[in-house]
Amino acid sequence: MNPLNFEANKLIVMLNAEDAKEIDVMPLERLAIRYKNRECVAIVDISNSLVKEGEIGLSIEVSGELKTRPESVVTVRMTTPPKSVEFIKKRMSGKELSKSEIEHIINDTVENRLSEIELTAFVMSLHHRKMSIKEAAYLSKAMIGTSKTLKLGRRVIYDKHSIGGVPGDKTSILVVPIVASMGLTIPKTSSRAITSPAGTADRFECIAPVELGIDEIERVVRKTGGCLVWGGAVDLAPADDMFIKIEYPFSIDPFLLPSVMSKKKAAGAKYLVIDIPTGKETKVKTLREYRELSEGFIELGKKLGIKVRTLSTFGDQPLGRAVGPALEAREALSTIMWKRPPIDLVEKATAVAGVLLEFAGYKNGKKVALDALKSGNAYRKLREIIKEQGGNPDIKPGDIKVGRFKVSVKSKSSGIVEWMSTKAVGIVAREAGAPKDKGAGIYFHKKLNDKVRKGDTLFEIYAEKKYKLRRALNALNRTPVMNVDTKFDMVLKVYPEEDRERFYFILER
Amino acid sequence: MNPLNFEANKLIVMLNAEDAKEIDVMPLERLAIRYKNRECVAIVDISNSLVKEGEIGLSIEVSGELKTRPESVVTVRMTTPPKSVEFIKKRMSGKELSKSEIEHIINDTVENRLSEIELTAFVMSLHHRKMSIKEAAYLSKAMIGTSKTLKLGRRVIYDKHSIGGVPGDKTSILVVPIVASMGLTIPKTSSRAITSPAGTADRFECIAPVELGIDEIERVVRKTGGCLVWGGAVDLAPADDMFIKIEYPFSIDPFLLPSVMSKKKAAGAKYLVIDIPTGKETKVKTLREYRELSEGFIELGKKLGIKVRTLSTFGDQPLGRAVGPALEAREALSTIMWKRPPIDLVEKATAVAGVLLEFAGYKNGKKVALDALKSGNAYRKLREIIKEQGGNPDIKPGDIKVGRFKVSVKSKSSGIVEWMSTKAVGIVAREAGAPKDKGAGIYFHKKLNDKVRKGDTLFEIYAEKKYKLRRALNALNRTPVMNVDTKFDMVLKVYPEEDRERFYFILER
Repeated sequence: MNPLNFEANKLIVMLNAEDAKEIDVMPLERLAIRYKNRECVAIVDISNSLVKEGEIGLSIEVSGELKTRPESVVTVRMTTPPKSVEFIKKRMSGKELSKSEIEHIINDTVENRLSEIELTAFVMSLHHRKMSIKEAAYLSKAMIGTSKTLKLGRRVIYDKHSIGGVPGDKTSILVVPIVASMGLTIPKTSSRAITSPAGTADRFECIAPVELGIDEIERVVRKTGGCLVWGGAVDLAPADDMFIKIEYPFSIDPFLLPSVMSKKKAAGAKYLVIDIPTGKETKVKTLREYRELSEGFIELGKKLGIKVRTLSTFGDQPLGRAVGPALEAREALSTIMWKRPPIDLVEKATAVAGVLLEFAGYKNGKKVALDALKSGNAYRKLREIIKEQGGNPDIKPGDIKVGRFKVSVKSKSSGIVEWMSTKAVGIVAREAGAPKDKGAGIYFHKKLNDKVRKGDTLFEIYAEKKYKLRRALNALNRTPVMNVDTKFDMVLKVYPEEDRERFYFILER
Repeated sequence: MNPLNFEANKLIVMLNAEDAKEIDVMPLERLAIRYKNRECVAIVDISNSLVKEGEIGLSIEVSGELKTRPESVVTVRMTTPPKSVEFIKKRMSGKELSKSEIEHIINDTVENRLSEIELTAFVMSLHHRKMSIKEAAYLSKAMIGTSKTLKLGRRVIYDKHSIGGVPGDKTSILVVPIVASMGLTIPKTSSRAITSPAGTADRFECIAPVELGIDEIERVVRKTGGCLVWGGAVDLAPADDMFIKIEYPFSIDPFLLPSVMSKKKAAGAKYLVIDIPTGKETKVKTLREYRELSEGFIELGKKLGIKVRTLSTFGDQPLGRAVGPALEAREALSTIMWKRPPIDLVEKATAVAGVLLEFAGYKNGKKVALDALKSGNAYRKLREIIKEQGGNPDIKPGDIKVGRFKVSVKSKSSGIVEWMSTKAVGIVAREAGAPKDKGAGIYFHKKLNDKVRKGDTLFEIYAEKKYKLRRALNALNRTPVMNVDTKFDMVLKVYPEEDRERFYFILER
């Protein structure tokens, strides 16, 4: 047979429909392909036109493994799909999976042995029938089994996590130096933004390098007690990355528990505080949902040997005033230097740090955390971390570049800020270019319940490229980020609509 | 941007990861691609290596629609995924879908606008939360909307369907001429085998052509009152074909109701009998399941204006003696010519035909059907149908060629046939080459409860190719098709196992 290359991310072979009938093989079944002394198992795809009878198309992955060239002659042999397909079917039928069944699925996922259809079927089976805590523990352990782990000797590891959903959340950049300055070990790995305008890795990258290898991370943490690095660089969750691709377009998150906890376990955590922003537009919308999710984390923590405490935090507006990698990095840095610290950011960071300090035996952890901030100890610790990660410890907020295109959005009326939409903030900031353009974002001059006078600046949008600024303003028209009104205006809508002007803001460039 | 072609079955474009970040687009989101005055919407895929920055890969479908050539420069524009993705998410959240939502999904499915992940998510949402009868009706109607329909004037249309699972089921080849000979109109479209050794279209193709266009079918039916054709040739279920690709590997069938009923409605059916084989290895295993499924069909029929009756039929052994397209065609033909008719086949065909005859006002339909068979009226009608479909009406059972390689399987012991495995029959017949090799299959000399003496022939395996006969015998070793034992042997297994010979049969070539 004459192999012809085609592109895929998996081990796939393409057969002519007639050949497929001849050997009685269906799409998604598996063939073992042999060339000289190499063999690999590939997923079958069938085409009427792309491959001629007697020929076989090999994806680049297959031809790479077999070291074939065009015109090479390969032999094929029927083989059964990996056992994990059986286990996925079992999960689809509503049965719980065992430890070894879950291990099979995770290993085959990471090694690209499952088709997109099979992976989607697995993710959907967990979406439609929630995993048990037992399954979550097996999944966590299997995911750790396919990931790298941090080796930090006999240190007791503390960690924090936020399930996200609040733009401008630069809490970690304060929490890590606070608790590390008190002698605790906190090897913080963070993600980059997927759907938000900035992840902690994107933010901190404006201050210091974050793409450290696992050996470098271990060195930084041994030396300073903390770090602020990108988890993606050290491959702490290869399976999770593949599930996210399927979860994201449907806005579902069935792997939340094992996804978070496996990464923390891989980092060696013994004590963990989880921030669960709660609000109208965050993942968790009510205190009841918060309680349920918390119980899941705590139970799963018990099975993995991690002591967990969760915090429900206010999630109905951005944290601090800055949204977007560079703007947030500036704000985090000036806050830790105790220059115009935003009250909500300080409140949240000290509350989160306080939980970890209390785990370590401190009384009144929040106050201890605030003292570490005010005294400059946290700032000194941050400088150490910046230096060890390869950055300049003398960096000042003004050194961090923000976008050169800017527009101020002013209020057309007087009143107070009645509501803010965190979703709209995310959309507008992303349209402005965040997180890819680090200098893009939004800086808020007014937040919830602030008094506003006509003509006051509500917020500024920053961008690195003019067309993205225009894009952001278009988004702002469609999805307003806040509303200014006189308080106690109880009428929400009038029908038929009054003929009033559509936009609540004036632009000034 | 420089388009480079790649292969897919859908409208897909591949972007470099950096470009995707720049315009802030994620996998599975959509881009509108423009070239000269043509535009199409494509699903986004992202690669780090296969496409360079500034270039874009177009699937053959995209470049075909836009009429681009390599090096053509195209423009891209963000656009939202089709609404049906929102509706799939809605269904995933457990909510019922409305008529127009289902129409959107079916149209986008047929027009290849949904990715495999999205289609799988939809199929799984119906697997995990069964569709309501309302949804089944909307789905049926939407599926009819994307399919061709038969136009047969004001005739009242009768139809039959079997949900399958019994090898050797050549009932339709008898039912159509029986009821057509009594003046009823029955435009029977059938499928080819997907997982079985023969579909009715495969069987009847050994007697007459079955790939007729819709005009030809209408002509045949107007002339003879019946037909036996392949539904696939007239595109009666384009959406269904795409769902089957996802259902098959998981052995699930959430679309059963709308899939069957939409095809019948597209053929114009007013009265429908559905055969539901019930047995250990068929889809429906208990009478309780049979009743539930029947209620679904009957309810759905009411919404579509089709009067439905269902029959639960014995499904624990093959029907008649022959399995495989040619062997079954021979058996069907000789039965209708009333030469050595197998009793179970006659029983079932007359029962099914009888229901349709009673719908038409006949009393004691089964007897009327038997008379039509015995009198030769059904045979005369079959000859008409064969002729109009373009076959030779004088065809004799002996004219139908069966495989020239044959092996007789004889019993090693005396006793009775205790059980047969319809699954194993299917596997062995397929390994022998059925349905692709029309002459391949199995002919049974002994069936359930038959007395067997040591050395008696149990069955013969036919193949067109020697290597497939060998393959079938290997399959037979792994999956026995029947068991001969003395009755009332109550001990099923002994542990540790006795040292007795493994095979229950002797081969004779």
